[in-house]
Amino acid sequence: MILSSILAFAACSAPQVKPLDRNPLQSPDGTLELRADVLDGVPMYSLKHGQSDVILPSRLGYDLVGDIDLKDGFKLDDVSYSSFDETWTPVWGEEDHIRNRYNEMLLKLSREDGVRMNIRFRLYNDGLGFRYEFPMENKLTYFKVADELTEFALAGDHTAWWISGDYDTQEYNYYKSRLSEIRGINGADRPYNASQSYIGPTAVQTALQMKTDEGLYINLHEARVLDYSTTSLLLDDKKMVFRTALTPDAQGIKARLQAPCVSPWRTVQVCEKATDVLASRLILNLNDPCVLEDVSWIHPVKYMGVWWEMITGKTHWSYTSDFPSVKLGETDYSKAKPHGRHGANNENVRRYIDFAAANGFDALLIEGWNEGWEDWFGCQKEFVFDFITPYPDFDLPALNEYAHSKGMRLIMHHESSSSTVNYERWMEQAYTLMNQYGYDAVKSGYVGDIIPFGEHHYSQPLITHYHRAVVEAAKHHIMVNAHEAVRPTGLCRTWPNMIGNESAMGNEFRMDINPGHTCILPFTRLQGGPMDFTPGIFEQDMSITAPGETGKMRHTIGNQLGLYVTFYSPLQMAADLPENYARFMDAFQFIKDVAVDWDKSLYLEAEPGEYIVTARHPKLSTLNAGRLSGTSGAYDFVYAGGRPHDVWYVGGVCGENAHETTFKLDFLKPGVSYEATLYADAPDADYETNPQAYTITHSTVTSADVLTVRMARSGGFGLSLREK
Amino acid sequence: MILSSILAFAACSAPQVKPLDRNPLQSPDGTLELRADVLDGVPMYSLKHGQSDVILPSRLGYDLVGDIDLKDGFKLDDVSYSSFDETWTPVWGEEDHIRNRYNEMLLKLSREDGVRMNIRFRLYNDGLGFRYEFPMENKLTYFKVADELTEFALAGDHTAWWISGDYDTQEYNYYKSRLSEIRGINGADRPYNASQSYIGPTAVQTALQMKTDEGLYINLHEARVLDYSTTSLLLDDKKMVFRTALTPDAQGIKARLQAPCVSPWRTVQVCEKATDVLASRLILNLNDPCVLEDVSWIHPVKYMGVWWEMITGKTHWSYTSDFPSVKLGETDYSKAKPHGRHGANNENVRRYIDFAAANGFDALLIEGWNEGWEDWFGCQKEFVFDFITPYPDFDLPALNEYAHSKGMRLIMHHESSSSTVNYERWMEQAYTLMNQYGYDAVKSGYVGDIIPFGEHHYSQPLITHYHRAVVEAAKHHIMVNAHEAVRPTGLCRTWPNMIGNESAMGNEFRMDINPGHTCILPFTRLQGGPMDFTPGIFEQDMSITAPGETGKMRHTIGNQLGLYVTFYSPLQMAADLPENYARFMDAFQFIKDVAVDWDKSLYLEAEPGEYIVTARHPKLSTLNAGRLSGTSGAYDFVYAGGRPHDVWYVGGVCGENAHETTFKLDFLKPGVSYEATLYADAPDADYETNPQAYTITHSTVTSADVLTVRMARSGGFGLSLREK
Repeated sequence: MILSSILAFAACSAPQVKPLDRNPLQSPDGTLELRADVLDGVPMYSLKHGQSDVILPSRLGYDLVGDIDLKDGFKLDDVSYSSFDETWTPVWGEEDHIRNRYNEMLLKLSREDGVRMNIRFRLYNDGLGFRYEFPMENKLTYFKVADELTEFALAGDHTAWWISGDYDTQEYNYYKSRLSEIRGINGADRPYNASQSYIGPTAVQTALQMKTDEGLYINLHEARVLDYSTTSLLLDDKKMVFRTALTPDAQGIKARLQAPCVSPWRTVQVCEKATDVLASRLILNLNDPCVLEDVSWIHPVKYMGVWWEMITGKTHWSYTSDFPSVKLGETDYSKAKPHGRHGANNENVRRYIDFAAANGFDALLIEGWNEGWEDWFGCQKEFVFDFITPYPDFDLPALNEYAHSKGMRLIMHHESSSSTVNYERWMEQAYTLMNQYGYDAVKSGYVGDIIPFGEHHYSQPLITHYHRAVVEAAKHHIMVNAHEAVRPTGLCRTWPNMIGNESAMGNEFRMDINPGHTCILPFTRLQGGPMDFTPGIFEQDMSITAPGETGKMRHTIGNQLGLYVTFYSPLQMAADLPENYARFMDAFQFIKDVAVDWDKSLYLEAEPGEYIVTARHPKLSTLNAGRLSGTSGAYDFVYAGGRPHDVWYVGGVCGENAHETTFKLDFLKPGVSYEATLYADAPDADYETNPQAYTITHSTVTSADVLTVRMARSGGFGLSLREK
Repeated sequence: MILSSILAFAACSAPQVKPLDRNPLQSPDGTLELRADVLDGVPMYSLKHGQSDVILPSRLGYDLVGDIDLKDGFKLDDVSYSSFDETWTPVWGEEDHIRNRYNEMLLKLSREDGVRMNIRFRLYNDGLGFRYEFPMENKLTYFKVADELTEFALAGDHTAWWISGDYDTQEYNYYKSRLSEIRGINGADRPYNASQSYIGPTAVQTALQMKTDEGLYINLHEARVLDYSTTSLLLDDKKMVFRTALTPDAQGIKARLQAPCVSPWRTVQVCEKATDVLASRLILNLNDPCVLEDVSWIHPVKYMGVWWEMITGKTHWSYTSDFPSVKLGETDYSKAKPHGRHGANNENVRRYIDFAAANGFDALLIEGWNEGWEDWFGCQKEFVFDFITPYPDFDLPALNEYAHSKGMRLIMHHESSSSTVNYERWMEQAYTLMNQYGYDAVKSGYVGDIIPFGEHHYSQPLITHYHRAVVEAAKHHIMVNAHEAVRPTGLCRTWPNMIGNESAMGNEFRMDINPGHTCILPFTRLQGGPMDFTPGIFEQDMSITAPGETGKMRHTIGNQLGLYVTFYSPLQMAADLPENYARFMDAFQFIKDVAVDWDKSLYLEAEPGEYIVTARHPKLSTLNAGRLSGTSGAYDFVYAGGRPHDVWYVGGVCGENAHETTFKLDFLKPGVSYEATLYADAPDADYETNPQAYTITHSTVTSADVLTVRMARSGGFGLSLREK
């Protein structure tokens, strides 16, 4: 049935259905084979894994605004091949060396009307990247994309883990279904988000993780999205063909291009094992090398925040109830009556600083520190914040000085309310203020509909904005963690001050997060770069955290601990309240001890949505890099007794079903004894009935040992292994 | 017929047609009477001049986006009256004191749903201003305007001088017609402009000058447009009712309001004589007083420019033909081959400095000094200029030093190419560069379609941008002259560093300008603020100015001289090339001698489109304020022989028909002899057949004399009167 559909589709929209038989390109290990050609004027490509079709012959090209399109009429002028093999060192990451090895094929196409378009393919052992390139000498100089016509013709009705296509948010739960079932599930009546734009019943977002009936893992994504819009994927579910669905700008243009230029890389990751997906560096490798000469100011960060108490409703971002509307520069806060529930007040911030410093954290985020939170939400208010004026009860210089005196930094918060026009106006002053007081990291936010009016979170002008925010921050030696911005596509390789992003449903969604969510994100969202998921919520019962609130989150404490190892991020939060941690200090010890930057990572066991078990070895050189003075918890853990110990951390998370994982410790140094501390779900733990039940066990292990750990439903574990 | 139409209209769209009989408000001199009321829930107003209807009962209100509108259901809670009489001193202007005297009536309206809306009326002797005000205590806090429903029901089929309604340009010739004839003339096939948006066959722009059959001059405009879009006027030409037609933003919203807030003033100027229209300060008076504490850095400017030679095609803004497209920061101009016709080169700029300094000018504008002009036009290119990087052949520091050494400043040029997103990104650096090298004035430009995409030149986000450019410039002590920006609405009172605007068809349109155009602009465009019309084109024949070009402009040299007095602007250009002036140095003497800032202005004779004759007395304190050192031409003229002389300048312009003007010199000091130098069209001068024929006559006159001057078709004259 599938084949006949493909045939029918090919007959109408592409010139031929027979396999492409020219211009083969093999992956370095020979497992993958790409073919590409121009048939009847149309550029086409296909991809095989061994004898299995991954991508059936699929068309390439563009529909442009105006008289010219880039659909057909091409001839193939030249095909050239090359190989590349390089090992590079990331500033931070899951490992200290990354091998970038591929075989490349460049197709040079031209048309009688003077149009020239090249297509560059890079074939890795773990997948394909290809992009369009428009040389300077070209009939087209400035041109507008009505649609990118890149197709991915799949060879079956694969299982997919997908979220609904949307031009403005990715903060959705995933569905697992056959491709053919997407249409029946994917409706416009999705959970509310402050800004969302439904695309259609068969539109899904990248990265899209799929699995064939034969067990092959196929992942569609993109890399290096710059000067271009971000794509969703639109499925022809009769033919099982995905097509790129770029995000339109305010005038409906999908991309505005100026030759010479290149498109983002379209990627097809192909792995035989789920753990290989997690180990893949395809997206990073397709990005440009780091452009920053001095990266000494970039460091990993483990932080706490005056944040969860606002998320839960215990306190507020705002300061007063006096103002039905605020006009910054006119509204006089000094005369306002505080409503008494402002979270970011001096006393409360000092309390957090005391707790975080005492537990070896690098930094403290404080949201709601600046004027404007009384009416920031949902008004599409252009001048919504100035990013430089603190509330009367937030003594910015004094609090920074207090934090610094304890060896910690404060993390700045810039909520743009999606008024990027305004944020750009204030950015230089805002970054300068940060420099003045020693902030070196900012969490930025893009909640709500975008200003410029009519733009989307993922349209080209916004891609340019997010990038600009990172570039300008780099000039100020500031690290950026952007929330509600576009999903990352590996740009952190080039700009390693881009230390975090949200761009998916994180812990802040509390009761709405499905079990198994955290077993999907590493296959999808995290392929493009680290996520500030804000793990570490120990108190699942909202009525305890924020009296008067209701609802319970759906994970165990073991699950939250497992996230610190499962989710790679150079920026990791301990998101819960100090008073909640105080009730579980023995479990909190794992969060204190765990590192956030690694020289080696091993993916021990994984299946999307079901479970992930990961082992990581800390990078010693950055263990204490986030601290101004004193030591971090991880540093103390590694340097216990004043000498370095070999240390590994293992973490596991699992989904709706409990899972028992068994793994060898053969990654440990042979013949050396390690003290193992396991923070596991208790035997009776369960995310619904008993989420806070955990056991902490100490044992001595060697590389010859094999461990078995049971994870409860939506559970997990953390394990530290320290050389004795 | 008119009356029956009004009746028919009123029956369907307004609750009543009978005259409003409550809440009268008289102008201070009793000539005008306003009435306003709420009838059947609808706010209404009417205006009379003596016994004549100026505005028949007309409705007020709004259509909003969403469930609430502001059309009806109102009750009148309160009517209060007040009077105001103040004389204020402008930083620059047509006179040194302006009387702001009005009677005011404030209507407070409310509705059962909690909506509150006030309407404030200010009645002057020369017209009416009214606006909507939304208090803080209001059901509406954030609301979006779908349409402002303000109507102006006229009492007849008046004669009007109008340009086509457009959201993006005002650079059109005027038509003179009956209101009922507009539809037949006003088509979408208008002359090309780089950005234009046709509104409809009965849409016209403000300021709209009309004249009744009884000879009353009625002018509809607006004042203090801030945080709001600019309006056109949409005519119901069956009923002779104009309605506001606000400019939509990229999402079709006409205005986004946040209470407390006010609308712009809607103005109805009513004058018995055409000269009174020119003398009216209604628009300025309705604006807020100056907000700048220190205005010592603001001064009038008489300048020349490396500009006309590019406008005419003699030279180019661009530097090279090497690049089909430019990417700033990547494109290397240092290796480019110059095409040899770049106007802004060091040698040429020095030539202009020499000529301008020798003739007492304050400043020199240079366009095309910065990288990016190879592909700046028509591409909607976001990063089009950086405003800080000069071309290789423009030595910015050296040229500034050279100009300063001769007592002159250079004027900076910032062509945004309407990419305001980009301009705002660079603005601070661009202004800082200006400060560094001593530029104190910038000509900015907004050619082409706006970025943010989908916005219009006159939509609210752009109004905010233009204002921001002026506010930020003020912080840097920079004066702004914005071209292609929105037509001014008197904001220069509040921000007197806003020394100029284009916002109408200026001399740069060369052969396309109709005779009589300059006799209309003072009634329309100039009501809102000064215009950088760039007068002084002596060489009408393009083939002489720019070999290879063709076409002849349609005015005499006398006309161009008359403009320096007719058009008030604190920023006046002598726009022609030095080599063209060199051929007419005796006529050029008037441009050298004339002042640009005044303590007294008299409007001697005027009729829209036909002729304008104006006399002005220079403000001595600013005569030399634009010069860094040395003296200006006007200073030398006034201080001839080392002592101050009483001096007047008179200028005249006329339209398609020749006109003989006769005026008394009774404004001169009685009993004092003045040397009169008249630069007049020669008897055989004619804009088509003999445009360069002029006569210069010297005579001695006193206040008892009466002068008669003949102006040729599209001609004019300049006259200086200096105390002997």
